[in-house]
Amino acid sequence: MGSNNQNNKTKVVAGEAGYVLEDVPHLSDYVPDLQAYPNPLQDNPSYSVVKQYFVNEDDSVTQKIVVHKNTPRGTHFRRAGPRQKVYFPSDEVLACIVTCGEPCPGINTVIRELVCGLHYMYGVSSVLGIESGYRGFYSKNTVTLTPKVVDNIHKRGGTILGSSPGGFETLKIVDNIQDRGINQVYIIGGDGTQKGASLIFEEIRRRGLKVAVAGIPKSIENDIPVIDKSFGFDTSVEEAQRAINAAHVEAESFENGVGVVKLMGRNSGFIALYATLANRDVDCCLIPESPFYLEGPGGLFEYMRKRLKENGHMVIVIAEGAGQELLAEDMETEDKQNASGNKLRYDVGLWITRKIKDHFAKQLKMVINLKYIDPTYMIQAIPSNASDNVYCTLLAHSAIHGAMAGYTGFVVGPVNGRHAYIPFHRINERWNKVVITDRMWARLLSSTNQPSFLNPKFVKEAKKESPPTTPLLSKENP
Amino acid sequence: MGSNNQNNKTKVVAGEAGYVLEDVPHLSDYVPDLQAYPNPLQDNPSYSVVKQYFVNEDDSVTQKIVVHKNTPRGTHFRRAGPRQKVYFPSDEVLACIVTCGEPCPGINTVIRELVCGLHYMYGVSSVLGIESGYRGFYSKNTVTLTPKVVDNIHKRGGTILGSSPGGFETLKIVDNIQDRGINQVYIIGGDGTQKGASLIFEEIRRRGLKVAVAGIPKSIENDIPVIDKSFGFDTSVEEAQRAINAAHVEAESFENGVGVVKLMGRNSGFIALYATLANRDVDCCLIPESPFYLEGPGGLFEYMRKRLKENGHMVIVIAEGAGQELLAEDMETEDKQNASGNKLRYDVGLWITRKIKDHFAKQLKMVINLKYIDPTYMIQAIPSNASDNVYCTLLAHSAIHGAMAGYTGFVVGPVNGRHAYIPFHRINERWNKVVITDRMWARLLSSTNQPSFLNPKFVKEAKKESPPTTPLLSKENP
Amino acid sequence: MGSNNQNNKTKVVAGEAGYVLEDVPHLSDYVPDLQAYPNPLQDNPSYSVVKQYFVNEDDSVTQKIVVHKNTPRGTHFRRAGPRQKVYFPSDEVLACIVTCGEPCPGINTVIRELVCGLHYMYGVSSVLGIESGYRGFYSKNTVTLTPKVVDNIHKRGGTILGSSPGGFETLKIVDNIQDRGINQVYIIGGDGTQKGASLIFEEIRRRGLKVAVAGIPKSIENDIPVIDKSFGFDTSVEEAQRAINAAHVEAESFENGVGVVKLMGRNSGFIALYATLANRDVDCCLIPESPFYLEGPGGLFEYMRKRLKENGHMVIVIAEGAGQELLAEDMETEDKQNASGNKLRYDVGLWITRKIKDHFAKQLKMVINLKYIDPTYMIQAIPSNASDNVYCTLLAHSAIHGAMAGYTGFVVGPVNGRHAYIPFHRINERWNKVVITDRMWARLLSSTNQPSFLNPKFVKEAKKESPPTTPLLSKENP
Amino acid sequence: MGSNNQNNKTKVVAGEAGYVLEDVPHLSDYVPDLQAYPNPLQDNPSYSVVKQYFVNEDDSVTQKIVVHKNTPRGTHFRRAGPRQKVYFPSDEVLACIVTCGEPCPGINTVIRELVCGLHYMYGVSSVLGIESGYRGFYSKNTVTLTPKVVDNIHKRGGTILGSSPGGFETLKIVDNIQDRGINQVYIIGGDGTQKGASLIFEEIRRRGLKVAVAGIPKSIENDIPVIDKSFGFDTSVEEAQRAINAAHVEAESFENGVGVVKLMGRNSGFIALYATLANRDVDCCLIPESPFYLEGPGGLFEYMRKRLKENGHMVIVIAEGAGQELLAEDMETEDKQNASGNKLRYDVGLWITRKIKDHFAKQLKMVINLKYIDPTYMIQAIPSNASDNVYCTLLAHSAIHGAMAGYTGFVVGPVNGRHAYIPFHRINERWNKVVITDRMWARLLSSTNQPSFLNPKFVKEAKKESPPTTPLLSKENP
Repeated sequence: MGSNNQNNKTKVVAGEAGYVLEDVPHLSDYVPDLQAYPNPLQDNPSYSVVKQYFVNEDDSVTQKIVVHKNTPRGTHFRRAGPRQKVYFPSDEVLACIVTCGEPCPGINTVIRELVCGLHYMYGVSSVLGIESGYRGFYSKNTVTLTPKVVDNIHKRGGTILGSSPGGFETLKIVDNIQDRGINQVYIIGGDGTQKGASLIFEEIRRRGLKVAVAGIPKSIENDIPVIDKSFGFDTSVEEAQRAINAAHVEAESFENGVGVVKLMGRNSGFIALYATLANRDVDCCLIPESPFYLEGPGGLFEYMRKRLKENGHMVIVIAEGAGQELLAEDMETEDKQNASGNKLRYDVGLWITRKIKDHFAKQLKMVINLKYIDPTYMIQAIPSNASDNVYCTLLAHSAIHGAMAGYTGFVVGPVNGRHAYIPFHRINERWNKVVITDRMWARLLSSTNQPSFLNPKFVKEAKKESPPTTPLLSKENP
Repeated sequence: MGSNNQNNKTKVVAGEAGYVLEDVPHLSDYVPDLQAYPNPLQDNPSYSVVKQYFVNEDDSVTQKIVVHKNTPRGTHFRRAGPRQKVYFPSDEVLACIVTCGEPCPGINTVIRELVCGLHYMYGVSSVLGIESGYRGFYSKNTVTLTPKVVDNIHKRGGTILGSSPGGFETLKIVDNIQDRGINQVYIIGGDGTQKGASLIFEEIRRRGLKVAVAGIPKSIENDIPVIDKSFGFDTSVEEAQRAINAAHVEAESFENGVGVVKLMGRNSGFIALYATLANRDVDCCLIPESPFYLEGPGGLFEYMRKRLKENGHMVIVIAEGAGQELLAEDMETEDKQNASGNKLRYDVGLWITRKIKDHFAKQLKMVINLKYIDPTYMIQAIPSNASDNVYCTLLAHSAIHGAMAGYTGFVVGPVNGRHAYIPFHRINERWNKVVITDRMWARLLSSTNQPSFLNPKFVKEAKKESPPTTPLLSKENP
Repeated sequence: MGSNNQNNKTKVVAGEAGYVLEDVPHLSDYVPDLQAYPNPLQDNPSYSVVKQYFVNEDDSVTQKIVVHKNTPRGTHFRRAGPRQKVYFPSDEVLACIVTCGEPCPGINTVIRELVCGLHYMYGVSSVLGIESGYRGFYSKNTVTLTPKVVDNIHKRGGTILGSSPGGFETLKIVDNIQDRGINQVYIIGGDGTQKGASLIFEEIRRRGLKVAVAGIPKSIENDIPVIDKSFGFDTSVEEAQRAINAAHVEAESFENGVGVVKLMGRNSGFIALYATLANRDVDCCLIPESPFYLEGPGGLFEYMRKRLKENGHMVIVIAEGAGQELLAEDMETEDKQNASGNKLRYDVGLWITRKIKDHFAKQLKMVINLKYIDPTYMIQAIPSNASDNVYCTLLAHSAIHGAMAGYTGFVVGPVNGRHAYIPFHRINERWNKVVITDRMWARLLSSTNQPSFLNPKFVKEAKKESPPTTPLLSKENP
Repeated sequence: MGSNNQNNKTKVVAGEAGYVLEDVPHLSDYVPDLQAYPNPLQDNPSYSVVKQYFVNEDDSVTQKIVVHKNTPRGTHFRRAGPRQKVYFPSDEVLACIVTCGEPCPGINTVIRELVCGLHYMYGVSSVLGIESGYRGFYSKNTVTLTPKVVDNIHKRGGTILGSSPGGFETLKIVDNIQDRGINQVYIIGGDGTQKGASLIFEEIRRRGLKVAVAGIPKSIENDIPVIDKSFGFDTSVEEAQRAINAAHVEAESFENGVGVVKLMGRNSGFIALYATLANRDVDCCLIPESPFYLEGPGGLFEYMRKRLKENGHMVIVIAEGAGQELLAEDMETEDKQNASGNKLRYDVGLWITRKIKDHFAKQLKMVINLKYIDPTYMIQAIPSNASDNVYCTLLAHSAIHGAMAGYTGFVVGPVNGRHAYIPFHRINERWNKVVITDRMWARLLSSTNQPSFLNPKFVKEAKKESPPTTPLLSKENP
C-alpha cells in the first residue's frame, strides 16, 4: 500500500499525460503487518454470477468529462467497490453508525443499508447505533442494529438514531471507540460532521488503531464539493414543488398577490435553483451566490413593480442564505435604534417579507397581498424518494466495501456517476456552490426573466477570476 | 466541418492515446456555401453574465470514466451546447415538433422547453406541433405552439400533441417538411421512432435540404444505449412504488398471500430492478435479461414455497418482457389443444399468475391468495417529477443548440452527466439492458434473496462472452 | 331492559305519532341477575369536563330527516355512546378482535382504536387478536394486542390480523370463545361476515353466555344499508381519482383513445358514482344498478361512436358488478364453442374491453386505442385518509361503549350523522344500492351526458315500484 | 308563499308537536304578480328517469336527530332541491358569481358547478364572473363564464375569479347589479362575506328588484353554524396530516425534540381537533375554545416537561386563535418596554414558540430542540379532494335550484346530511365552535393525554351554562 507521504493530508499518485490520483489513506499506511483475508463475497451466492466482480487495484475515476484531444487527464479518485482482499475477518468486525445534524431524506436508508449490507454481503453481525450524534459516543448507551430492527426504517423520515447539536470531543469519542473495541466507524453528517470525522481519523491514526473511519456526506442543500450530488437533494427539490405551487395559487388568487417561498440553502442555492427550474411558475429566485439589492434601478423592488403590473401576481423563491450582507447591514441600522435584538428578524424570509410589505405600503401606497411560506421542516422530514433510496443503498455499500478493504479517512460519493473514495480534506476545504457565471444559472435567469441584479463591473471581474479551464470541469455546465 | 467520410453512417475522428470521437453530421457536410451567423445568445441579457458561454468547437465528452493510468482514452461524443456561430437566422427558422409512441412522463415538458427555449433563447417564434405522430405530417393540420400555449403543460401527463400507432412514410413526411418550409424537425420518441428519424434525415440529406433533424430519445424503460438514462424513467420508478406497496399490503393481509406486480420493460428490466431496490419489500424480481424457470429444483415455484413457508407471504415483481421464451413454449402447447388463440394469455402477468395459481391449487393442494397488479397505464400517464422536469429542460435546450448550430442526424442525451450529440446509428443498433453479470443485479439478488435461476453452465459462458474491459464502461457498476 | 319479544330477530318499541324504535338485544335479555357497575369513565380525567356525558337511556336516533309538518316519526335506532352503568368490571373483560374479507382502508384504525379505547377509556388491558379471520378462532394462536403494539398501525394499509377466505364454523368458534373465556367479541367485516356474527350471537344467546358480540361493518363499496356510509369508502373514492386521471391522460394522448377503469362494486355502484362525480373527466359510468346494452340504438357502442366523433377520446368507468346479465349471456354462447372455461373472461373489465375492441375492429373497421386500468388492489391496500381515520375512531368507541353497557347482537354506524346501535338483521337483509330513479344518479347522467340505457317501459315500472314516501328517506337525495 | 311576517329577519312557520320551520325569503314576498314557469328539468333527458323528482312544497329538514319518544320536534329548514315551478325563464337569467376572502379548497369546484349546473340543468347560458371580490362589481370588467372556460378549474387550488380584501359597498354593488340587469347573485365567502350578502339582499328587497341572492358559505375552519360542515374542511384536515407528520419526525429525530404546528382556526378549533384525532402522534392540541395557561401546576410547561421526560419528544398542534388572551396580556407587558410594536409577535405560533424556548432556556436550563411549522398557505391553496368535490357539486346545485325557484336571502348547506335553505341571519349570528364540554373534545383529551388546562370552577360553570337539551342537538356528540 506504500506511497504514503509525509504530509498527513494528501496522498497523491501521479501518472502519464497529466494523470493525478488523489488517493485515500489505508490502514496499512500506519498499522504494521496488517493481515489480509479473502473477500467473503466470492462465496456469496448472489454475487457468484458477477463477472470480474472485484474492482481492480488501480481502477480510478476521472473527474474530467469534457475534454479535448489534447487535454491533460487531470484529477482522479480511487474507485469504490469490493476488493479481492479484505483486512477484517467478518466475525471480528464491530461496526458503529452515528448520525449528526438536521434530518435529511435518506438517512434511515443509509443506516438500513449499512446494517443489511454488512450483514448480508460480509456476514458481519455486530453493528452498534450511537444515539443523539457525536455526544452519544460517551454519554449514551448504544443500540444494537440488526436487519430486523432496520427493516422498515427507510419508509420513515428523520433518523432513528437521533441527533443533537454540538457534543463533539475528539478524545472522548476516540477513547470510547477504543474502549468498546469498535473497529469500523460510519459517520453520516454534513461538512461540520465530516470535519469531526477527519479529526477522529487523525487521532485514530495517531494512536495506531486498526479502526476504519468512513464518512457518508449528508447535505440536503447539496453543498458538498467533488461528488455529483448529495443524498436527499432530489427528494427535497421534489417536495419543494408543493410549496411553490401553493405560493403560486395564493398569489394568483389575489390582486397584486405575492407568494414568497423560503427554501433550504445556507451556503448554496441548488435547491432554489433546481426547484425553480422544475416548476416554472417562479418569477424570481434569490440565492446566496448571487448578490442582489432592493432599491433603485435594477433592484428587486423595481422588478416586482414591473411583474405585478404585467401579470398581477408573482412568486419569489429565496434560499435561506441569500442576501445575508443586505440583512446584516439592515440589522446593524436597526440595532442602533432598538437594543433588544430579536432573533426572528434575522430569518431572511421574515426579513424580506417585511421589507417588501413596508416598501409597497409606505413608499408606493400600493396594496399587495403577500403570503410567506417556509416549508423547511416539512421538506427535511419526509422519507426519501425511490431515486434517493437507490442512491443511499449504493453509498452505504461503497462505504462498507471501502472499510472492509482497509481504506480509512475517506468519504464516499459518485464522481461523474461512478462511486469513489475521496479524502476528507477534499470535501472539507470548500463548499459546492452555484456558479453564477455558468450556463445553469443563465437558464434560470432566462426561465424567470428576472434581472441578474449584478452591476456590470462585478460580472467582468467574475469572468476573469477563475482559470479558463474551469468550465470544462464544472458540474454546472451539463 | 470537413472530415466527412464516405460511409453515410459514421463520422469518426481519431486522436492521440486511443482518443476516438464519434461525431454527428452537420448541414455543411452536404449543403454547399452554408452561411453562418453570430449566435443571438451573446446579446441575451440572461446569458450575458456567463463566462465562456459557448462550447469550444472541439469539446467532447468521454464515455469512459473508470480508468487506469494507462487506459486508452476510448470513445467520445461531441459536447452539446451553444456555439459561437449558428446556421439559421432566428426569423427564418420554422421548427416542428412531433411525438410518437406511448405516453411517458416528461414529453410535455420537452415540448414546452423546445417552444420556450427557441423563443426565449433564440428569438424563434415559428414552431408547429404535428398531431398524432408521424401520420400527422401528411394527414393533419398543424397546431401553432407558442410559450403561452405550452405554459402549463408540464404539469399534465401524456402528450398534448397526441400520438397514434404506425403511419410512418418517409417520402410523404419529407415532402411535407419540404412543402411547408420546415427547417428544424424535433422528434420525440423511442427506438422505433428514432429509426424513422434516421430515415427522414437520410432522405433530407439525399435531397440536399437545409433542414436539421434532432431526436429526443424517449423510453420509459430506459432501454436507450449510450445515454445515462432516458427521461421519465425516474418518475416511473417512483410511481411504481405505489403498486409494490399495495402488493405488499395485500400479500401481508392474507395467509399465503402473494402479490404480483407487472412493470414496464419489454426489452430491459431497469424499472423492475430499480423499483425493487428502492422498495425492499420485494421477494423476487423477474426481468427479460435473466432467464428463469418455474418447475423443479432452483425454479420459481420451489422458491415461492420456501418463502411462503418462512414468511407467510411474498411479493413478485415481473417486467413485461420477462420469461417470454417460457411463455411462448407454453402457448404453443396450449394452442394445439385450443384453436381460438386468446390474446390476453400472452400478457406475462396474466400468464404467470395463472401458472402460479394452477401449480399451488393442483399440484400442492395449497391455498394461496394471489393478487395481481398491473400499474402500467397509471405510471406512464403521470406528469414528470421535478428531477425529470429539469432533465427534460436540458434535453430540449441541448437539442435546440445543436440544431441552431447546424448539427443534424443526432439525438441528445447525457453521457456521464454531460449532454452530448450522438449519431442516430449508435442508439438504434441495440438496446440498453441490465447486465446480469454485473454488480447491480447482484445487489438485487442480495436484497431479495432470490436464487439466480441460472444454471451454472450459463453463468460460465456469460462470464466469458464479453471482453474483459467491459465492466469498466458499464453503467451497471457504479 | 324489559320489552323483549318472542321473535328472536326483532325487538321493537313503539311510541306516539308513529315513533318506532328498532332496538338491539341486551345481555340482560337472557342472562338472569346480570350485575351492573358504575361506568369507570366518570372518573376518567379526560372525560371529567364533559357535561351530561352519558347517553340517556331512551335516546334514539331518527332515520327520517326530510319531513312534513304531519309526517309520522318513523323508525329510530338506539343511540350509541357511554351509559351510566356498565355490565362488565374492567378487569374481567377479555375482548377479542377478528377481521374478515378483503383489505379495506381503515381496518387497522378500527383495530387500533378498539385496543386503545378499551385501554384508555375503560381500563381494559386484555385484548386478543384473532389471526386469519374466523378460521383463526380455532386453528391459530391468538396475539396479544396492547396500545404499544397497535401504536402506528393506522398508517399502514391492510389488516395486521390478516384474513383468509372461508373457515366459518359457528360451533367451533363459540366453543373457542367459551373455552378461552372471551366475553367481548368485536367482528370487523362485510355482509357475509356480519351474517356469521349474527349466527355466533344466536349461538351465544342459546348457550346463555355473558358474551357481547359487536359488529363493525366493513364494505369498501358502501353496500351496507341503514348506515350513512361505511369506512374506507371515502378513501377509496379519493384514490380512484388517480386511475381515472390516468385513463383520461391515456385517452387524450391518442387518436380515438378510450380509457376504461374498473372500480370496486359487486353489488352497488357507489364508488363508481362518486368517483365519477368528483372527477368530471368521465364520459360514461356503468354500475350494477343500471342495466345497459351494447349494440343497437341507445346502446353503449352507439354512444361511444358519438363521443369519439365529437371529442376524439373518452373515459369509461365500470363497476365490477355492472352488466353481469350481459356477461352471463355472452359467456353461455361462448361456452358452447369452447369447453375450457377461463375464469379471467368473467372479469367484467376484461370482458367489456374485448367486446369494445372487437366491435370497433370488426364491425366498424375503426382504429381505437383502448387502455384498461384495474386499480382495485391499489385502492383497497392504501391506508385510510384523515376523514376515515376519525370515522373509524368513532365506530370503535361506539362499539366499545355498547359492549361495555351490555348490548349485544348489534352493529355500529352513523344514522344521519349520529352513531347508533343497529340490530344485525337490519343490515343483513339487503344491500344498500344506488337508486337510479333518484336525483344523485340523474346528476351523474347530467355530468357525463351518457344516455340512461333504459328502455322507457322499465323506467315507468321503476317509478311505480316503490311507495311514494321512499324518496324522503333515501340517502340518494341529499 | 304568504306567511311573511313584519320582522325583516325571520320568517317562521310553526306546526304541531313543537314543529318549527325557519323559512327563507321568496321573491314573491315582495315582488307583486311574480310569474311562475314549468321547471325545464322535467324535459331534461338525464332527469327523466327520476321518480318524484321535485321536492315537495312543504318538505323540511329536521335539525334534531337524537330524540326521545316525547321530544318536541324542534327547528326545521326548508329542504333544498328543484321545484315544480321556477320563477325565471332560462333565457332571461343573467347570473353572476363572486368569491371573497382567503383561498379555500373547493371554491373553483363551486364556480364550475354553478356554471355547468345552470347551463346543463336549466339551459342558462349567461353567467358572469365578478373578479377580485366585492370590489369587482364596480371597479372591474366582468368575465364570461361558460362550461368550456371552467372545464378543468376544479383541479386547481385557489379561485379563478380572484379576491381582494375590503371593497364592500352595498349601494354601489346593488346599483351595479341593477345596471347590468343581473338577476341571480351567487356569493361564495365566509361569515363576513355572507353578512355583506345579507345587506345586498336587504337593499335589493328594499328596491323591490327581482334578483335572487344565494350564499354558498365558505369557511376552511368550519365555523359556520347550523350546517354539517363547510366545504374544504375535509381537504384541509387531510393536508394538515403532512405538517403534523413532519413535526413528529423532526421531534423524534432530536433529544428533547418539540414539534409545533400552527393550523387554521381563528374562531374555532375544528381543524386542529380533527387533524389531531386523525393523526394520533400529537401530544397536545390547543384551540380557541379551550383556555390554557403556561406556567405553574397544570399548565402547559409542566405538561411539556413531563412528556419530554417520558418520551424524549413531543408534538403540539395549536389553532391560530388559541390563547389570544394570554398573548394579549403578554403583548401589553412587552409593549411597555418596547415602543415599536412588531406585528409578527402577535402570531400565536411565533409567540408560543418563543415563550417555550425562553422558558426551557432560561428557567430550566434544559436544551430543547423546537421546530415550528406553519402550513397555513400550503393547506388553503391545494385543490379540493374527491369528497369535497362531490360536496361542492351538491352545494352549487342546491343554490341553483333555490334561486331558480325564487328563493332568495339564503345560504345552502347540509343539515344532518340533507341540503337545506337557511336564512342568512341564522349563520351570521354566531360561530360554530368546538364545545369543550362535549364528548368529541373528551375523545381528544383521551387521545393526547393532555390535561384539560381548566380550573375546576370553570368546568362547573360551563356545565351549568347551557340548557340540558343542548347535547342532544350538538354536532359534537356523534
